[in-house]
Amino acid sequence: MEMHAFGELLPMEEAQRRMLVAARPLSRTEQVPVTEAFGRVAARAVSAPRDVPSFTRATWDGYAVRSADTRSARRSRAVRLRVVGEVFAEGRFPRPLCAGEAVAVATGAAMPRGADGVIIFEDVERTGPWVDVPHPVRVGDRMAPPGDDFPRGTSLVAAGEELTPAAMGALAACGFATVRCYARPVVSIIPNGNELLVPGARPRPGSIYESNNVTLSAVVSAAGGTPRVFPPVPDDPRQIEAALRAALPTSDVVLATGGSSVGERDHLPRVLPRLGRLLFHGIAVRPGKPTLAAVAGRKLVIGLPGHPSSCLANSYWIVLPVVRKIGRRPGPAWVDAPVRLGRGVLAPTPELATVIPLTLRHGRAYSAYHGSSSISSMVGARGFAVLPPGRRSVHPGESLQAHWLLPPLGPGGGPLAGNG
Amino acid sequence: MEMHAFGELLPMEEAQRRMLVAARPLSRTEQVPVTEAFGRVAARAVSAPRDVPSFTRATWDGYAVRSADTRSARRSRAVRLRVVGEVFAEGRFPRPLCAGEAVAVATGAAMPRGADGVIIFEDVERTGPWVDVPHPVRVGDRMAPPGDDFPRGTSLVAAGEELTPAAMGALAACGFATVRCYARPVVSIIPNGNELLVPGARPRPGSIYESNNVTLSAVVSAAGGTPRVFPPVPDDPRQIEAALRAALPTSDVVLATGGSSVGERDHLPRVLPRLGRLLFHGIAVRPGKPTLAAVAGRKLVIGLPGHPSSCLANSYWIVLPVVRKIGRRPGPAWVDAPVRLGRGVLAPTPELATVIPLTLRHGRAYSAYHGSSSISSMVGARGFAVLPPGRRSVHPGESLQAHWLLPPLGPGGGPLAGNG
Repeated sequence: MEMHAFGELLPMEEAQRRMLVAARPLSRTEQVPVTEAFGRVAARAVSAPRDVPSFTRATWDGYAVRSADTRSARRSRAVRLRVVGEVFAEGRFPRPLCAGEAVAVATGAAMPRGADGVIIFEDVERTGPWVDVPHPVRVGDRMAPPGDDFPRGTSLVAAGEELTPAAMGALAACGFATVRCYARPVVSIIPNGNELLVPGARPRPGSIYESNNVTLSAVVSAAGGTPRVFPPVPDDPRQIEAALRAALPTSDVVLATGGSSVGERDHLPRVLPRLGRLLFHGIAVRPGKPTLAAVAGRKLVIGLPGHPSSCLANSYWIVLPVVRKIGRRPGPAWVDAPVRLGRGVLAPTPELATVIPLTLRHGRAYSAYHGSSSISSMVGARGFAVLPPGRRSVHPGESLQAHWLLPPLGPGGGPLAGNG
Repeated sequence: MEMHAFGELLPMEEAQRRMLVAARPLSRTEQVPVTEAFGRVAARAVSAPRDVPSFTRATWDGYAVRSADTRSARRSRAVRLRVVGEVFAEGRFPRPLCAGEAVAVATGAAMPRGADGVIIFEDVERTGPWVDVPHPVRVGDRMAPPGDDFPRGTSLVAAGEELTPAAMGALAACGFATVRCYARPVVSIIPNGNELLVPGARPRPGSIYESNNVTLSAVVSAAGGTPRVFPPVPDDPRQIEAALRAALPTSDVVLATGGSSVGERDHLPRVLPRLGRLLFHGIAVRPGKPTLAAVAGRKLVIGLPGHPSSCLANSYWIVLPVVRKIGRRPGPAWVDAPVRLGRGVLAPTPELATVIPLTLRHGRAYSAYHGSSSISSMVGARGFAVLPPGRRSVHPGESLQAHWLLPPLGPGGGPLAGNG
């Protein structure tokens, strides 16, 4: 059994920087139905193609009038107008309004031609076909011109923006059925190791169920990517190389798990340099030290350790930002919030940075870390914190900057509690 | 044109409380592939069905030995053992270890029977088939018993928990292919109004493109529900009632939009009481005042105003928490964070509460609110804040508690920036 040694370990910031430089934002786009575009990244700026609404509308329920008719109206001497019709939101009064006439209009209805103001129902007396107007109506009262919602050319969506419910509604209001978005990055996940079992297989001594593909798939989805999981590849450098080469043309990034360290059966450190330029092997972080990355053609290939908790920690601070960058997502990869520790944490190897997966109970964070070989350290983790190299411990009650993949679970209570 | 008046307006907290009481958590469950379970709500507690791993394993690369053989080992007088085999992660040494023997083992490999400790490669001298052990190996060194990851019975997932990447990995590591989850709530969205156009239709005076279904669909998806959008129903009470009755049996909640106010063509206030018990009509909030809700059978029916920005505001503080409750989602409906206003805000009707949709630029929040009839107030909104009744204004630079539907977009910089 041969062992090699790691070269100099790379600080995690520098490892992340090299991977992010190599992670090229994709340029593929696709037309997405507006109804399915929630959270997608717009590839083009979109502006209103015409005035919305296209007509002058009433902004209140009332009577559309010619303001000139009401100039002399006083409480003591009301002006009497004849009601010649009514217009609901979808209708249209068929002819121009004549002197002495009024038309009942609903909010949002098109104003009759010739009408230049609206007086609200509450302000008039109605008697049969007549309304008595007790004060002058000013030009433009309770009405709005074409383009009041969106004048033609209004920016609805900027290129590179994540589509919100609000932006989707604005696109729909302007009549758009689809919107051009960047494609979701395709992320191939290739586990390797003879010991890996697929679900349903019978456990044997020395064998374990493959679980990294599930964790990575979820993180890839959270990052807006499309995970593509390959069956486990045996511990054979030729087969691993062939699997990576086969996946590359149709992938935006390839994640290989297992065999990333320095042992005899750790083939990735020998295979990746055959595919392209090695960026590094070995990061000064625990868990996750045996991680490597290469650029093959213009694509990033990352070798992640097979230990499930190492793979989880790496998925947070490597996979999530890398896939988000390739998918051109703006903004941060996680929700940052300071949190107090419920129990102290010791850095197992203080000369390395420490990634601490965090669980949250009663508003306090707890390390879920038991050791890099322990899968149970993962259960309950919703985010993580990083201790820099040299930091030996964090005391109970100390505050840490935490990065949450999912929003932290807060205290109970109604959603409006605390709004004042 | 008839007008009715609102009765007493309900405070928004009370309106929300009544709807949340009527929103019954669903009990339908379904079996979901673990690979697709990200963010789903577990319906049952799941624990480890057996010890994981099922065997005693080495936790380091090295030589598995019988500790008794090494008791007399000293640096000056090493104990020489014969290497009789090697075990990689998936293998198994075929017979018990005899006195004076060692087996090379990789991290994670099953320990040979009879071996009770591991000495790491770096600590020994290897010469052909021999290793020289320079110190005693203690019982249990560098090895772990069956169940080291998960002893049989370990809790993997609690009932009612949202599945994280970490929990999904733990389920996969225990060999689970599927997990029982609560169904996604089916949310029917029924727009009504003669003025509503579907995408592709030619705009006419008085007509507008239906957009609330798109906004609501996105918010329903964000809440973990499945939106089901109906085509617009004409302004006819019988047709509206028929559409609502038809949707109810296969829906967990029904959202009707438009016609929720007090005008002649506002049919929902007359239709909803025919379906069940009216909870309220009219909320002391702006925008969103003309909102009503009823319980039909055991199901909630909510009538939302047709003005797109009113509908958006209501989707945040009504639809999101209601759908989350029906889907049994734990935790808050949005990410709360205080934010400073970049520009002052005036409450348009200070006797009512004000819901302010917020956009974020350069770390400051701006009201996206232009008036309840303006759709453009929606563009860019990613969250909201609430001013309580009586609050007339917020000054520029003042801090507000904001509720973000999507994580707020923070300043740029590398994802690890500021961790150090």
